[in-house]
Amino acid sequence: MKNSNKIRIVPLGGMREVGKNLTVIEYRDDLILVDCGMTFPGDEMPGIDIVIPDISYLVKNKHKIRGMVITHGHEDHIGAIPYVLKKINIPVYGTKLTLGLIQNKLKEHRLLGTAKLKTVSHGQKVRLGKLEVEWIRVNHSIPDSSCLAIKTPLGTIVHSGDFKVDFTPISGKPIDLNRLGEIGSRGVLCYMGESTNVLRPGYTMSESRVGETFDRIFSQTRRSRIIIATFASNVHRIQQIINAAEKFNRKVVLSGRSMLNVMSTAQRLGYLQVKPNTMIDIRDMNKYNPHQLVLITTGSQGEPMSALTRISNDEHRQIKLRQDDVVILSAHPIPGNENAVSSVINNLIERNVNVIYESLSEIHVSGHACQEELKMMLSILQPKYFVPCHGEIRHLKKHAEIAKKMGINKDNVFVLENGDCLEISQSEARMGKKVPSGQVLVDGLGVGDVGSVVLKDRKHLSEDGLISVVVAIDKEKKKIVSGPDIISRGFVYVKESGNLMSGAKKVVLKKVQDSLNGRNIQFNQIKSDIRDELRGYLFSKTKRNPMILPIIMEVKENS
Amino acid sequence: MKNSNKIRIVPLGGMREVGKNLTVIEYRDDLILVDCGMTFPGDEMPGIDIVIPDISYLVKNKHKIRGMVITHGHEDHIGAIPYVLKKINIPVYGTKLTLGLIQNKLKEHRLLGTAKLKTVSHGQKVRLGKLEVEWIRVNHSIPDSSCLAIKTPLGTIVHSGDFKVDFTPISGKPIDLNRLGEIGSRGVLCYMGESTNVLRPGYTMSESRVGETFDRIFSQTRRSRIIIATFASNVHRIQQIINAAEKFNRKVVLSGRSMLNVMSTAQRLGYLQVKPNTMIDIRDMNKYNPHQLVLITTGSQGEPMSALTRISNDEHRQIKLRQDDVVILSAHPIPGNENAVSSVINNLIERNVNVIYESLSEIHVSGHACQEELKMMLSILQPKYFVPCHGEIRHLKKHAEIAKKMGINKDNVFVLENGDCLEISQSEARMGKKVPSGQVLVDGLGVGDVGSVVLKDRKHLSEDGLISVVVAIDKEKKKIVSGPDIISRGFVYVKESGNLMSGAKKVVLKKVQDSLNGRNIQFNQIKSDIRDELRGYLFSKTKRNPMILPIIMEVKENS
Repeated sequence: MKNSNKIRIVPLGGMREVGKNLTVIEYRDDLILVDCGMTFPGDEMPGIDIVIPDISYLVKNKHKIRGMVITHGHEDHIGAIPYVLKKINIPVYGTKLTLGLIQNKLKEHRLLGTAKLKTVSHGQKVRLGKLEVEWIRVNHSIPDSSCLAIKTPLGTIVHSGDFKVDFTPISGKPIDLNRLGEIGSRGVLCYMGESTNVLRPGYTMSESRVGETFDRIFSQTRRSRIIIATFASNVHRIQQIINAAEKFNRKVVLSGRSMLNVMSTAQRLGYLQVKPNTMIDIRDMNKYNPHQLVLITTGSQGEPMSALTRISNDEHRQIKLRQDDVVILSAHPIPGNENAVSSVINNLIERNVNVIYESLSEIHVSGHACQEELKMMLSILQPKYFVPCHGEIRHLKKHAEIAKKMGINKDNVFVLENGDCLEISQSEARMGKKVPSGQVLVDGLGVGDVGSVVLKDRKHLSEDGLISVVVAIDKEKKKIVSGPDIISRGFVYVKESGNLMSGAKKVVLKKVQDSLNGRNIQFNQIKSDIRDELRGYLFSKTKRNPMILPIIMEVKENS
Repeated sequence: MKNSNKIRIVPLGGMREVGKNLTVIEYRDDLILVDCGMTFPGDEMPGIDIVIPDISYLVKNKHKIRGMVITHGHEDHIGAIPYVLKKINIPVYGTKLTLGLIQNKLKEHRLLGTAKLKTVSHGQKVRLGKLEVEWIRVNHSIPDSSCLAIKTPLGTIVHSGDFKVDFTPISGKPIDLNRLGEIGSRGVLCYMGESTNVLRPGYTMSESRVGETFDRIFSQTRRSRIIIATFASNVHRIQQIINAAEKFNRKVVLSGRSMLNVMSTAQRLGYLQVKPNTMIDIRDMNKYNPHQLVLITTGSQGEPMSALTRISNDEHRQIKLRQDDVVILSAHPIPGNENAVSSVINNLIERNVNVIYESLSEIHVSGHACQEELKMMLSILQPKYFVPCHGEIRHLKKHAEIAKKMGINKDNVFVLENGDCLEISQSEARMGKKVPSGQVLVDGLGVGDVGSVVLKDRKHLSEDGLISVVVAIDKEKKKIVSGPDIISRGFVYVKESGNLMSGAKKVVLKKVQDSLNGRNIQFNQIKSDIRDELRGYLFSKTKRNPMILPIIMEVKENS
């Protein structure tokens, strides 16, 4: 048995990309999943809702899987869970808030009845076959975040999850460096470390810094309403807004579906400290004066349907902007969202609102470790092998470079890609055979039914539109019975296209008649001829290249 | 005559947007255009090549137009010139390099024979009716940039163009503060000032700072080839690369169509100082060792067809990456291009190349004035009226706020939008009647034939694809003769769509047959019925909403 005494580390997502984190860790017949996330589609995937990892490797090895161990409740770590559970119903382990958020998700997918959710707390160990997983407290932009120490017969693997080092966090509990030090001192076989902020030197600021800024803004805003947009899952940020609201005698209103969902879960599970009369329902808002209110909304990323975007476009049913409102965007635009965020800011300013955003004031800090914190982790754990994870290739390589400078043997640092299989034995680590990996696109109810051909067509359609040509022919009589009819969409203004379309008709008519006069009438050939002729004609007239859909119907004409 | 003694300032582009700068300045029967630029389409305009201002106001007043006065040769200031000249052939005034670049553009549009180009130099004044325009030297990221002092019978209007204050520029000539001071001391009626960097505090670094970084990188790179991507029009940046190349004994190779075009114009007109043997043809590149070469390419914005993008994808015919190449991106990603630039950087790193970009090193400085320079300009000119320009609303409002703090009367500061008409008389300034303005989309040969309906269709097609349904019917016999045939594109994988499509066919068949059995057969009604039925069916099965194109052909069946 070649693989018998090896640990296999197989990332199925999160390598050379940001999102859909999923790592498989195997020893003999025991396999566990670390996290199970989704990612948002890029510009090249129009119409796609979300992207999840290809899990054919998991389906093939389903008999070996002992469970899923989750580091925290962000979408890029939990978003694919319902899709995986639909195929393989394995137990899911995580901290209380993490499982609370997973529960909300499973409810939407009607999986609550069958799912096996197991709550763990920091410091607790769970045995999964020959593997034993311990959850260790870290700081991050969502409470209850953990890194994992996975004890195997060959040594301990530490997976960082997402983390930062915050000595003055809002919950009061910093990352458990003490326990990490203990684990480090006993020897770490392999460390998998997140790389999100590896390009940033120094340390990430403490979350409490933002609270100071809120205090300053609240104290300076005496007459106006305050509206703050942030991530719904950033419970500590929202706690700080609530603290400021209570200090300055304002009522808090929540707006946005995900904000209401996450907050009700967080409050129910005891992650928010709120005085009895602080929160009010949005319908009671008008009973208060502007200076008695703080609104907390979704939409810090300029998402088109979010509360803040609708407010900025005057399309929100309950919240209408007032001239002197103070609007705070307490978030950093995720790469790709910059234009959407700018456009929301401009719309707000257009309505004479006072907008405070990141480049103007300290109203956001990152949830991820910068270079010095990453070095701290490497130096506490002193792992034998190092695998940078969660990042684009530039992040992974930079993290690898830092690890080498910190003294890790350069042959023991592995920059992997999804589907790679790192095999660690007693004596060495090396790359094994790759496993299937990739992305599965979710579009409406379809999981994986949209692929590259469909996306290529969508791109083509979006850039040049289409022309549909229909002609009915009588094959026997070699005659056009009806048509050609031409319809276009997304190509040119119909009212300006008169000459162009009548020209196109002539081109098609001639081509079809020529084909009918030939010896061998083949529909596919006629279609391809129509396509070629029409493409040439339209390009010469417009320098555009619409998709051409020829349809030929065969009928027998009345004689 | 109500308007007889008024100056009218009418921006047709560049207000509350970045790009397509075009401002009209009128006095009685004399009208001039300041700049005539284009902008690039946003994500919401797929397939569009460029966007230019609506110039119906100019066409209506063509008899009054005395000429176009251009501040510098960037696309957002000259890109719409060919489109305007095709409708109104007016003289174009600009400095030597500016006109050289306009000439290239007119050549492509076959307008060189008819265009009236008039070269001016800094300090020169040109009389255009009752207006007199003077070009004044400023620093910017392209040589020969100017601000304009426009003398009118009611006072002087100063338009900043794009500028920064660089006391150690590459050309050796800083902005002409002396002349601006003279003009300021005689009294400025109105100042129009660019606002690009108004959100950034402090001063913009000197271009020569980048040269120091190049020197450092070149001196540290002893064995490898150096590849630098930057804007083709940034002649001073390229001059500095050439200087470094000559200092460190490297030959310079240019790559990318626009790079070759701009450089040949700049060199011909004397804007580049190059020793005789420095430049070599790309075909001679293989005669040299890597450490003897610098390649200067386009693609600093991650443009899909640019040299650097093709190099990074191993699709460039002549330039293949080598493992130890040093690639420098000497530019800042323009908002909206961040993801494209990241993807090029990642592709390069994937190929084991050493990539140096803005966040890692000082290899770029902006061409625009920061807050302190903008204040300097306001304080030198001390204008009576102030109109911030070139920027989104947040930039314009911030610039307005700074001007007020600098002592300009708040009633004399005007934040305009495109089409606004600011009327300045001897005694006052106020808003006149708006003129038509907007954006005209250029797609291939079509100028203005793509509008909101076409764009809406393109967006719909890109997100959900389409289904075309064709059915041939015999109206008299109330019978379906052929079909329904169904074709889809950009909707679902064909091979997975079998059941869905046969279900769709049944739905259509039933609906059409029902309609045919009715009393009054109306094709439009049948089409709309098909659309409704099919939309409901497909949404229930897929939660998607493709565009549905029903086509009905009428034929008479053989009996």
